[in-house]
Amino acid sequence: MRCEIISVGTELLMGQIVNTNARDIARELFSLGTGVYYQSVVGDNAQRLAEVFRQSLQRAELIILTGGLGPTDDDLTRETVAGVLGLPLERSSAWEQKLQEIFARLKRPMSKMNLRQAMVPKGGVILPNERGTAPGIYWEGEGKIVFLLPGPPRELLPMFKEQVIPLLREKLQGQKNIALLRSRVLRIAGLGESDMAERIKPLLEKQDNPTIAPLAKRAEVHLRLTARGASGEEVDSLLAAKAEEIKKVLGDYIYGEDEDELELVVARLLWEKGRTIALAESCSGGLLSHRLSNIPDSSRYLLAGLVTYSNEAKINILGIDRETVEKKGAVSAEVAGAMAKGVRRLCHADIGVGITGVAGPGGGSPQKPVGLTYIALDAEDLQLCRRYEFWGNRLDIKERAAQTALLLLRFHLMGRTFGLK
Amino acid sequence: MRCEIISVGTELLMGQIVNTNARDIARELFSLGTGVYYQSVVGDNAQRLAEVFRQSLQRAELIILTGGLGPTDDDLTRETVAGVLGLPLERSSAWEQKLQEIFARLKRPMSKMNLRQAMVPKGGVILPNERGTAPGIYWEGEGKIVFLLPGPPRELLPMFKEQVIPLLREKLQGQKNIALLRSRVLRIAGLGESDMAERIKPLLEKQDNPTIAPLAKRAEVHLRLTARGASGEEVDSLLAAKAEEIKKVLGDYIYGEDEDELELVVARLLWEKGRTIALAESCSGGLLSHRLSNIPDSSRYLLAGLVTYSNEAKINILGIDRETVEKKGAVSAEVAGAMAKGVRRLCHADIGVGITGVAGPGGGSPQKPVGLTYIALDAEDLQLCRRYEFWGNRLDIKERAAQTALLLLRFHLMGRTFGLK
Repeated sequence: MRCEIISVGTELLMGQIVNTNARDIARELFSLGTGVYYQSVVGDNAQRLAEVFRQSLQRAELIILTGGLGPTDDDLTRETVAGVLGLPLERSSAWEQKLQEIFARLKRPMSKMNLRQAMVPKGGVILPNERGTAPGIYWEGEGKIVFLLPGPPRELLPMFKEQVIPLLREKLQGQKNIALLRSRVLRIAGLGESDMAERIKPLLEKQDNPTIAPLAKRAEVHLRLTARGASGEEVDSLLAAKAEEIKKVLGDYIYGEDEDELELVVARLLWEKGRTIALAESCSGGLLSHRLSNIPDSSRYLLAGLVTYSNEAKINILGIDRETVEKKGAVSAEVAGAMAKGVRRLCHADIGVGITGVAGPGGGSPQKPVGLTYIALDAEDLQLCRRYEFWGNRLDIKERAAQTALLLLRFHLMGRTFGLK
Repeated sequence: MRCEIISVGTELLMGQIVNTNARDIARELFSLGTGVYYQSVVGDNAQRLAEVFRQSLQRAELIILTGGLGPTDDDLTRETVAGVLGLPLERSSAWEQKLQEIFARLKRPMSKMNLRQAMVPKGGVILPNERGTAPGIYWEGEGKIVFLLPGPPRELLPMFKEQVIPLLREKLQGQKNIALLRSRVLRIAGLGESDMAERIKPLLEKQDNPTIAPLAKRAEVHLRLTARGASGEEVDSLLAAKAEEIKKVLGDYIYGEDEDELELVVARLLWEKGRTIALAESCSGGLLSHRLSNIPDSSRYLLAGLVTYSNEAKINILGIDRETVEKKGAVSAEVAGAMAKGVRRLCHADIGVGITGVAGPGGGSPQKPVGLTYIALDAEDLQLCRRYEFWGNRLDIKERAAQTALLLLRFHLMGRTFGLK
């Protein structure tokens, strides 16, 4: 099945935002074995959108449009697509009712403009949107499948994975002899990209099926394995065998797979071991607490996360010795250790974490440059403090500090020595 | 000058990487006043690339192709573009020599494949690449300007800024009566997209120059004004006049412009008024603290952000009455108010913020559904607590809670009544 993706939005054309939707959709379609032949971006302009859509209808069987489904007058996708297909728009009373419920719950009046979002090209099927007012629309006819999907990624992606993919999978199963493609992602942290590539060099050089693609992320690297085969069983066993080979080389540096983020892995370990945690953050500013609390039910093990930004907060709340702060400085191994110990005691937690550093851009000195960070863990059987020099801008340094603290926690909870650089 | 961007590469089509090049090029062209009308992505396939390029030649005067200039067999851009334009390829002896120097320096033998990178369509001009072996190529003829640029962003972006932009600027200056385009973004929070559109409907309906485009973001809306004119002065005054008109209607709902994020606006207000702040977060999990600490020098006004996740932390650290927590529940107006007051007192801050709610997905009840959130402010002249029912997933609810707290802070610091829904 030949596919095209059309992204609608002047903000994309003008370069105000980057087109992550096209990337994410293409990746999902690829794993279904569906080839994307063209991607286009067009502005909020009915004539140009109509031209691009007409051309796609000539070249492809599956056309996915994103964006331009909002309530305002420059949102033209619904009307334009219906026009090219020669279909009238009909009001979906089910979605109209849903809109009324949404606005009632928000205690806001629904404007007439919002009613446009309940209009559907004749024969189209509504794909409910749990995160916004624009539903997706699925239409099939004359050998073509067309999807109209909302532009905001937080609305689009769940809709795509939960509704579009299952629909397409069903369609594709009807077709015979298609090669199945599947991929699996190994997530690696604690090793740089080139260091990792060096270790698995023989595997990278002789790759064929599965292919192995490294992808560097902030403070971690992902390895995407992609296998081809005639059946799900064949593909899965190819992937499993290759993942085993890589695990033999990279071992504990692989912290998870696919969508498992590091905070989820750490949360699972805390949960399995029945241990509680309390955080004292300074330079990371609450980011570690934010990441750990993104995991549902985190209140079971996360007792508190104290962002003791000022020296007074470190002294008064965590009970750190004033002399230590003044003599050693807030960014020091001693203060990091005292933060971890202090927050653990204050909250009666099993594990305390302390992070202190210079996030920049100001505040650095030759002795304590921007990026210098101390991370400490405190537990009954452990007092550990590590010194790092992170690089990048303020947010990079915050993210590297939070990521490294999670890695240290993971190794501690696994009972491993700390092989981190 | 109408422009199109063509990105060549199967890795883009398959969704292995995101197309940041198109975004970066579009942004630069826009600031030159050159409109991008279409962006396309096509794989490493000569026939499809030729079709896309031929179409662009019909629609645009300026065509920028990126990618497909490498030394391997799947790099086809040079040959394909020359073929469509009907030009022979000629070897650039200058670039051949440069390649020899590069490989001599790397102490690696130069393969025959690399010599392809010295081939240029007749009449084309080499744009030297200081960061790779593929030069850019600039060609002009028959009223068209074509650029072939390397795909890797670290090679492309410096080449674009240092060589392509100055060339284009020169071309544009030669043309008379060319329109200059500039835009300005107004950032709006506290009003939904349709509510905002309703209020400025007359302005949206009679828009021409500047145009007005609304863009919904999470918990805020951006209005992009774009003006055309013959000079910078003319364009700026058109933008200023339209911004004034909109400000008359939307007033304080406009919190900032262009790149100013809400946390920066609040940080500036705290700084200007010389006031300090301390946060007590529960359901938002440290996100408010993270956002405020993203601003450089936030330690000047952010004394502490305490994520008192457990009831014990609320009672022991913030000094909230145990009976209040047990009788009213952790998610209650009373506890939110006590959190704000408690953290303010503990940290000797001018303003205390308390946030407590049900982030979900578990933990909701008919009386206290997922999304229910109380946000309180405490200051010498203010005790305020608001009740909200946010919707969406766990991260949506955290983000809406943090955003709303920032809005309440902004209104308080401006001395305004709280017109927030």
